[in-house]
Amino acid sequence: MRRRSLPQARAGLALSVVPVKFHSVTTFNPPDFSDPKFAGFPDARFEPAPADGVLPEGFFSTTNLPTFVRVNGRWVAPREPRMDSGLIMDANGVLWVREGRRLLKGDLVAVGDKEDGTQGIYVQTQLTPAGAHDDAFAFMSSEVSREKPIDYGHMARLLLEERERGGYPVWVTGPALVHSRARTDMSWFIQNGFVGALLAGNAVAVHDIEASIYGTTLGMTNTGEITQGGHGLHMRAINRVRAAGSIAKAVEQGIITDGIMYSCVKHNVPFVLTGSIRDDGPLPDVITDSVVGQDAMRAHAIKATFAIMIATALHAIATGNMLPAFVDNGDGTMRELPTICVDSSEFVVSKLKDRGTHQAFGVVTNAQDFMHILRLYVEREIESRTAATSTTAAGAR
Amino acid sequence: MRRRSLPQARAGLALSVVPVKFHSVTTFNPPDFSDPKFAGFPDARFEPAPADGVLPEGFFSTTNLPTFVRVNGRWVAPREPRMDSGLIMDANGVLWVREGRRLLKGDLVAVGDKEDGTQGIYVQTQLTPAGAHDDAFAFMSSEVSREKPIDYGHMARLLLEERERGGYPVWVTGPALVHSRARTDMSWFIQNGFVGALLAGNAVAVHDIEASIYGTTLGMTNTGEITQGGHGLHMRAINRVRAAGSIAKAVEQGIITDGIMYSCVKHNVPFVLTGSIRDDGPLPDVITDSVVGQDAMRAHAIKATFAIMIATALHAIATGNMLPAFVDNGDGTMRELPTICVDSSEFVVSKLKDRGTHQAFGVVTNAQDFMHILRLYVEREIESRTAATSTTAAGAR
Amino acid sequence: MRRRSLPQARAGLALSVVPVKFHSVTTFNPPDFSDPKFAGFPDARFEPAPADGVLPEGFFSTTNLPTFVRVNGRWVAPREPRMDSGLIMDANGVLWVREGRRLLKGDLVAVGDKEDGTQGIYVQTQLTPAGAHDDAFAFMSSEVSREKPIDYGHMARLLLEERERGGYPVWVTGPALVHSRARTDMSWFIQNGFVGALLAGNAVAVHDIEASIYGTTLGMTNTGEITQGGHGLHMRAINRVRAAGSIAKAVEQGIITDGIMYSCVKHNVPFVLTGSIRDDGPLPDVITDSVVGQDAMRAHAIKATFAIMIATALHAIATGNMLPAFVDNGDGTMRELPTICVDSSEFVVSKLKDRGTHQAFGVVTNAQDFMHILRLYVEREIESRTAATSTTAAGAR
Amino acid sequence: MRRRSLPQARAGLALSVVPVKFHSVTTFNPPDFSDPKFAGFPDARFEPAPADGVLPEGFFSTTNLPTFVRVNGRWVAPREPRMDSGLIMDANGVLWVREGRRLLKGDLVAVGDKEDGTQGIYVQTQLTPAGAHDDAFAFMSSEVSREKPIDYGHMARLLLEERERGGYPVWVTGPALVHSRARTDMSWFIQNGFVGALLAGNAVAVHDIEASIYGTTLGMTNTGEITQGGHGLHMRAINRVRAAGSIAKAVEQGIITDGIMYSCVKHNVPFVLTGSIRDDGPLPDVITDSVVGQDAMRAHAIKATFAIMIATALHAIATGNMLPAFVDNGDGTMRELPTICVDSSEFVVSKLKDRGTHQAFGVVTNAQDFMHILRLYVEREIESRTAATSTTAAGAR
Repeated sequence: MRRRSLPQARAGLALSVVPVKFHSVTTFNPPDFSDPKFAGFPDARFEPAPADGVLPEGFFSTTNLPTFVRVNGRWVAPREPRMDSGLIMDANGVLWVREGRRLLKGDLVAVGDKEDGTQGIYVQTQLTPAGAHDDAFAFMSSEVSREKPIDYGHMARLLLEERERGGYPVWVTGPALVHSRARTDMSWFIQNGFVGALLAGNAVAVHDIEASIYGTTLGMTNTGEITQGGHGLHMRAINRVRAAGSIAKAVEQGIITDGIMYSCVKHNVPFVLTGSIRDDGPLPDVITDSVVGQDAMRAHAIKATFAIMIATALHAIATGNMLPAFVDNGDGTMRELPTICVDSSEFVVSKLKDRGTHQAFGVVTNAQDFMHILRLYVEREIESRTAATSTTAAGAR
Repeated sequence: MRRRSLPQARAGLALSVVPVKFHSVTTFNPPDFSDPKFAGFPDARFEPAPADGVLPEGFFSTTNLPTFVRVNGRWVAPREPRMDSGLIMDANGVLWVREGRRLLKGDLVAVGDKEDGTQGIYVQTQLTPAGAHDDAFAFMSSEVSREKPIDYGHMARLLLEERERGGYPVWVTGPALVHSRARTDMSWFIQNGFVGALLAGNAVAVHDIEASIYGTTLGMTNTGEITQGGHGLHMRAINRVRAAGSIAKAVEQGIITDGIMYSCVKHNVPFVLTGSIRDDGPLPDVITDSVVGQDAMRAHAIKATFAIMIATALHAIATGNMLPAFVDNGDGTMRELPTICVDSSEFVVSKLKDRGTHQAFGVVTNAQDFMHILRLYVEREIESRTAATSTTAAGAR
Repeated sequence: MRRRSLPQARAGLALSVVPVKFHSVTTFNPPDFSDPKFAGFPDARFEPAPADGVLPEGFFSTTNLPTFVRVNGRWVAPREPRMDSGLIMDANGVLWVREGRRLLKGDLVAVGDKEDGTQGIYVQTQLTPAGAHDDAFAFMSSEVSREKPIDYGHMARLLLEERERGGYPVWVTGPALVHSRARTDMSWFIQNGFVGALLAGNAVAVHDIEASIYGTTLGMTNTGEITQGGHGLHMRAINRVRAAGSIAKAVEQGIITDGIMYSCVKHNVPFVLTGSIRDDGPLPDVITDSVVGQDAMRAHAIKATFAIMIATALHAIATGNMLPAFVDNGDGTMRELPTICVDSSEFVVSKLKDRGTHQAFGVVTNAQDFMHILRLYVEREIESRTAATSTTAAGAR
Repeated sequence: MRRRSLPQARAGLALSVVPVKFHSVTTFNPPDFSDPKFAGFPDARFEPAPADGVLPEGFFSTTNLPTFVRVNGRWVAPREPRMDSGLIMDANGVLWVREGRRLLKGDLVAVGDKEDGTQGIYVQTQLTPAGAHDDAFAFMSSEVSREKPIDYGHMARLLLEERERGGYPVWVTGPALVHSRARTDMSWFIQNGFVGALLAGNAVAVHDIEASIYGTTLGMTNTGEITQGGHGLHMRAINRVRAAGSIAKAVEQGIITDGIMYSCVKHNVPFVLTGSIRDDGPLPDVITDSVVGQDAMRAHAIKATFAIMIATALHAIATGNMLPAFVDNGDGTMRELPTICVDSSEFVVSKLKDRGTHQAFGVVTNAQDFMHILRLYVEREIESRTAATSTTAAGAR
């Protein structure tokens, strides 16, 4: 039987509801730097990089949380936040978060090892609005379990809101997604404007293309049957795209006629395929250099307002490393960056959180089922909104 | 990248399809005992049980496969087959499979340690019809993976066929099923005639009833929100049913107004709730003695023509221990007993197979999603059949 | 790469060490009831049980944390604490924690749904000594991972301390433990005074006895080889013990000559074998009724000063349900009850914690390896203490 | 309870032992091409590659099994076998297995889709010596389970045999290995001549070096304690090696003073560190291009006579893709290439097998414990051999 002695210990039987982290996209304010506690803090100190790609000793190592640096008495948020990087001031005095490998000798780098403002750098660790019940929050944020219900309705509404406000949802997927039905569902999301960019590896594209050309994925038909002689099919698929020159050309030439990559090409949805040492082929579009691949992924991570990671450990954690935990609302406030991580086991989600992506909301299920139900809920939500609009319109007449 | 060198090594590129075990319910014949190889075999030998509940040394230990015993020159199949039991001849010369603990002193028990007929006992290990591709079969039967597509359409058709021919589908469920949506879907299957019997433990009933009375399961609302003070709710639910005297009485008295247990009571679907040392309460309907509980479960296992096990290791393996691997068609042929096992990890299904339930077909997913999609497919199949019937009827006019 | 942005965000680079929960057995004091905040609280209210085994509506549902009940103006700790039970006052005014099913009609039961003292019942949720770093604590308590080092040296020292002070370590084991080497190591711990009581199920004893009689466990030899004809061996082992009458008699008669059960019998270490619906046989010593089995387990849980759970979900959670989170030191202070949970996956430990056993410290590894290394470390610790003593003794001469 | 009805169904109670695959390194012969069934087969057909890095349509896609190609009437085994590649004939008529991306326009590539010799290409699927019990073999090869005993003694003997005969054991490791004790044990294996080459990623080296410089791995001390301010330590470690220029230089300069990378540098054991999109830094020695990285790994895979993969999915599968399933004994016979895969869950091993590395033998445990016990067994084996040698030497005098 399930129970939670500690948190409830502080409350009674009254059935007040404590919202789960994911259920609301929290909006919060930056710290109030007029607070006297900030008064005595100094400006941050900067030192030059001793060589290309090398940070000065004592460099400040960033987190994915809102960070403020005191320059000439003002607290400034550096651009393009992410974790595990340096804080650089450019020639115009603008602050950037930059990976160490991207530095040039002489670049000015913030130094320090305190995050409490005493060295001119302040990391905001409280992202909850004032008044939130802190214990409950901490309690739920560790929660990832196959034993929890999944609120598909809520995720569907979030996706629709992103589409309405012109957000930039980044989808990160692994090869387990590419079974016939999930492949169809993923294509539907691309075709209907729910995907800002797709980040994946060689295998996702290979099996998606294999499915388009040969009707199989992993040598299996879409009802899970094995084809004899199927072990070479993905190699043949790769070879045909290599012969065509690129995925887009293979689409043009009518070699690839449906699926995820086809939909991306036809609907101008950008994709980044990054290489790994496990790759067969690879396909010509794959960026084989991991550092170049990271830069390509980061170009999308910087713009992300929503992240959904499905059935991939490697790409999910890589993306998590590059994502800030928050989005700037542009009005002086910030909000959490909703990050959904879907996997068959709790392990990947826990690992993602352990590596700093605290905001990740875990869904423990099969990728095929997840995509199928999520699409169903999005379609229903669209229908109900359309119906509501028609009624309103009719009523207005 | 996925490949299967060995099996395909024997075949070419031609895309012939090797059916996955589950995709056809194999019908097969008993061995042909007129074959000369059976000619010289003796009658089986029987010895009396030395004491109540004790088998004679050298007893024959049964499997779940079709088994034939030579008595007076004829090969007879014992009744109520299961694994890990003895073969008993009653006073009328009828053969039964019986757990050792159920024997009385002096009961006649078959002895032997050969399954090849040389001691008068023959176990049929080839359940495939002649002509089936043996390698492929062996290869696929070891396959349980989150990376395989799930053929919901096929499962939906099997369930409808069972309902049509008056089969006896046994559902075995664990507490992870009892979240709001899966609970609603499970109730739907009960109400619509797809459940012959429900085998579960205390926790399934407790959380289902908690949901009906308090709107929570595991102290969570059906959107996954935590209620403060919720840690005692399942104890309060148990207490109210204990006060009422039984689940059926709590339904009568209007305490339980919806859900799985409610549907079972209202639709006269038998359920067996067996106890475990983890139980809170327990509910008054729970059979706390495990041996009595096994007997109650076995009364349904004997009748089973289909088994579906969802999100439970303990009850799935217990039921698997009691199930034969086959069903007698009544016309001299037999068929495999379709056994579907749904779990979040491959481990439970592999364990079930390792413990002898070779026929189990694994589905690696979340219980909530499984139930939701399976119901959707059954509903669609019913609609399409109804439509087809209407059209035919209209055309016939 | 691993990082922890949030907690470290509050600290600098100085390498001060935050102790992991398990590394110190925290001693703490009860609340200071002379604090003015307790002044206005009323005595707890009691109501009679309406029927045998039924609690009054509104009963107070216990947790496993230190709990104090105000009776005649004094705050009293009830005896035999555990979660999910009622608080009973006996005829002598003594308070007990009792499972609802054990009540008799008319027993006086505390009512209330607040744990903050306002209804005369106070649950102590802060078990950390004053001055502990609260954030770090909360952070580490959610930590269970295969990626953490295991401090065998510390566990070895804890076990030796328990033996020295006459503690009562309860070992709870599952069948995966019973492979040849782990079986040998477990026997060693029993023979050397590290086991207060052994709580297990039928399977542990069956395979241990199978190993003693036939040299196999699970039909495998101790080098992992399969024996042909092995599928009936555990049934034959069970049958021989049933014929003997009990495990102790089978030891006496020379049927069982080594192993876990043998060592328990020979060294008078009490064991409780509780039944489940998965059991073959069962062995004659198995308590088949789960409620009787719970009572038998609880008789040991009440005395426990240390708990170690290895490769079992069912028995670990059942025991966790019965264990308080603390031990009374007898001097007015309390200490955490060290609870080690060993499993091949994080899931069981997380589940154990989710079900309220917050103090559980998880070790994610294979049972065989765990036992082998733990024994090695205990042996080394004994040697080094002996050496130290000799040296000291020599030096003292 | 565990049982295996099917295989044992064919055997009796006699306790004959069926060897588990791993327990003997099977030696086998190539097919007997003088067998009349090969008489009518044609020479293999070759076609030119249509462009650089593109195979001709209809190319033969290789497996990791022994393969023979008929050229001018003779059956020839191509060099450097691996799966998922093409068969190339060079200007001297020598046959090579080559990844498609490495072809130049005009290279001659074998075409065909049959592996049975009828198109001049024959894949040997039976690697068992004549007389082996085929059913048992098939049955055990699917066996990976946390419930099986691990035969450390056997693995220790295999490692010593490899060292004695000058074999080339390739170790493939993931970051979970790099905890203090496992790191020490891994260093010991390197220092003592048991490692031919080390294949790993950036993270293994980063945390190993972090441990050498700061005494932490993953920000944890070697007793599992967390250091405050530790989240930047691995970034600082990377930065120092980048400043030094390479790992070897950092060893020279006294920055890195112990551990895995230190031991490789000091003992001239080659290592390949390949990049991934998850990498921080990376270290200067990391090969960031995945195709170049594959080539570097393959240079060692070609020489491998033994493979041991610990706690890594990505690198294990990448290496498995490149490894043949067999080693040429140089005397006309071949033997299986022993491949041990250690992971905390069955999933990685199953995935490795599913992707064609059938020969993988799975060990389900924690990396720290595995390394600790394996070293212990190797040390004991060395001691016992030394003792035996001394005795023999003494006896010979």
